[in-house]
Amino acid sequence: MNKKTFAIIGLGLIGGSMALALKGFEDFRIIGMDTSPATLAFAREHEVADVVTPDPAEAIREADVVMLCMHPQGILDFLQEHRDHFKPGCLVTDVCGVKSAIMAGAECLPETVDFIGCHPMAGTEFSGIQNAFAEMFQGSHLILTPRPGSDPAHVALMERLGEHIGCRDVVKTTPERHDQILAYTSQMMHIIAVSVCDDENLFTCKGFEGSSFRGCTRVAALDAGLWTQLFSLNTPALTTCLDELIGHLQSYREVLAGGDRQALLDKLTVSADRKRQVDLPGPDLLQ
Amino acid sequence: MNKKTFAIIGLGLIGGSMALALKGFEDFRIIGMDTSPATLAFAREHEVADVVTPDPAEAIREADVVMLCMHPQGILDFLQEHRDHFKPGCLVTDVCGVKSAIMAGAECLPETVDFIGCHPMAGTEFSGIQNAFAEMFQGSHLILTPRPGSDPAHVALMERLGEHIGCRDVVKTTPERHDQILAYTSQMMHIIAVSVCDDENLFTCKGFEGSSFRGCTRVAALDAGLWTQLFSLNTPALTTCLDELIGHLQSYREVLAGGDRQALLDKLTVSADRKRQVDLPGPDLLQ
Repeated sequence: MNKKTFAIIGLGLIGGSMALALKGFEDFRIIGMDTSPATLAFAREHEVADVVTPDPAEAIREADVVMLCMHPQGILDFLQEHRDHFKPGCLVTDVCGVKSAIMAGAECLPETVDFIGCHPMAGTEFSGIQNAFAEMFQGSHLILTPRPGSDPAHVALMERLGEHIGCRDVVKTTPERHDQILAYTSQMMHIIAVSVCDDENLFTCKGFEGSSFRGCTRVAALDAGLWTQLFSLNTPALTTCLDELIGHLQSYREVLAGGDRQALLDKLTVSADRKRQVDLPGPDLLQ
Repeated sequence: MNKKTFAIIGLGLIGGSMALALKGFEDFRIIGMDTSPATLAFAREHEVADVVTPDPAEAIREADVVMLCMHPQGILDFLQEHRDHFKPGCLVTDVCGVKSAIMAGAECLPETVDFIGCHPMAGTEFSGIQNAFAEMFQGSHLILTPRPGSDPAHVALMERLGEHIGCRDVVKTTPERHDQILAYTSQMMHIIAVSVCDDENLFTCKGFEGSSFRGCTRVAALDAGLWTQLFSLNTPALTTCLDELIGHLQSYREVLAGGDRQALLDKLTVSADRKRQVDLPGPDLLQ
C-alpha cells in the first residue's frame, strides 16, 4: 500500500462535500481535518473521509495535496501558521471565492511548495458538514488560478479532480480576472438577495411568490461571517458592479415612470435579447 | 353525455399548460381557442384539449367556465368584444399577472356573468404552446381575486381547480393587494434580471457563473411584449418597489465602501436572519 494522501482542511459545507465527492479519486487516501468536535464526530460517523483528525500537523505532514476549505481569513491564517509544515513538493490549493487575496497570502509558502488557487462554483445557502453532499459540484465550473510557475503536473491533477467530482468544465484564469468577474456573477447576486429581503414587503408576501422570487432571494440566507470576508477582500470590484447595477435599475425606473410603452418595449427587448445570447445551462434550471 | 364545458382562450405557455393540467377535471369537456394556425395545429396534434377551434364564439357559446389566457391587453379587448356572447350564469376567469386592470375591464360584463380574477404563480422564461407542460402549476400558489358579489359556488370551483392542477394552495385577496405585492415578488424580480443582464460583463462571464447568477437572471429572457403590458398596468407600485430596492442597494454599497467590517457583518446578519424567518418552499429549489 503506497497511497498518496489528499488532506482536506476544514470539513464544512464545501470541504465536507469535497471529501465525499473525492471518494475513489485515483490512488488518494483522503484525510479530513477540522477543529470542531461535532464536525469530526459527524465526519467519522458518516465516513466522510478515510481518516479524520483535529490535528493540522498530522493532516498535512504526509499530504501530497492539501486543500484549504475554511473561510478566507482562516485560509490566510493557516498558510502563515503552517508555512513550514508542508511536505516538500506538495501542492496546496483552496476553494475560496476570492483569489487575489489568497494568492497573495500563499506567497509566504517556501519555494518547494506549489500553490494553485481553486474555486468550485458551487454551494448552497446552507452551512456545515450536515448539509454536505457528494453531488454538489456536478455540472458546475471549477476555476483554477495557477501561479505562473505552477508545476504543469499539478495543474493536470486539478483538472482530473474537476472531472472526478463532476464539474462541467475547468476554467483557468488570473486571480485578478476571477475577482473582477466574480464580483458580478456571485458577490453582486448576494447583495441583491439581501437587499430584496430588506424590503418591508418580505414578511407579508408569502403566498404570492413564484420561482423568480425564490431564485433571486435563495442565497440571502447566507453565512454572514463568510460573506463579510469575501466582500471585504473584493470591495473595489464589487462597488463598481453595484454602481453599474443601480444605474441600470434607475434607467428602467425612469422609462417606467415616463409612461412611454414603446420605449419600455424597446428597452426590454434589448435586455431580453442579451440574455438569450448567453446560454448558461446548469444543474438548477427549471425543466 | 351532459358534460360541462371549460373554454380556454389563448393556448400559449400558460393556456396550453392549463389545458394539459385540467385533463380529467370533474366532468368538464375542455375546448381550446387560439387565433394562430400553428398553435391550433400543435394543440390538435398533441391533444392539448378535447376540442380546439379558431372561433371565439364557438368556444364561449356553451361554456360554463371561460378562462382568458392571453396577454393583458388581449384579455381586456376580448372582454369588450365578447361581453354579450357569454352564456348567462357562466364564470369568466383569467390567468393575468395584474389584477386591478383586469377586474376593472371585466366590469363591462352583463350582470348574469360572474368574473373571478385568477393568477397562477407559475411560468417559465419560455413562450408558446410548444413549451407548455401539465406539471407547470405543481407546488405553486393560485391567487384568486373574486368580486365581492361572486357566486360562492364559483369560488369553490376555482379552489377545486387549484387542487386538481397541483397548486400548493389557493390564496384569496383583493386586486389592489395582489398588484402591490406582485410588484415586489414578481415584477421587480424581472426588472432586476434584465438590469443585471444590461451589465457589460454579461458576455464575458461565461464559465464563472453559479446557481445564484442563473437563479437571478433566468427570467431576463422574458417576453418583452407581455412584460411591457404588465409593468405598464402596475407602474406606481413597481416604481415604489424599485426606489426601495435602490435605497437598500445604496445602503450596502456605502457600508462596503466605508470599510467597516463589523458594520457590514451586522448588516448582513440582519438581512440573512430576515430571509431565514421566511420559509418559501417551492418546486425549483436546489436539492
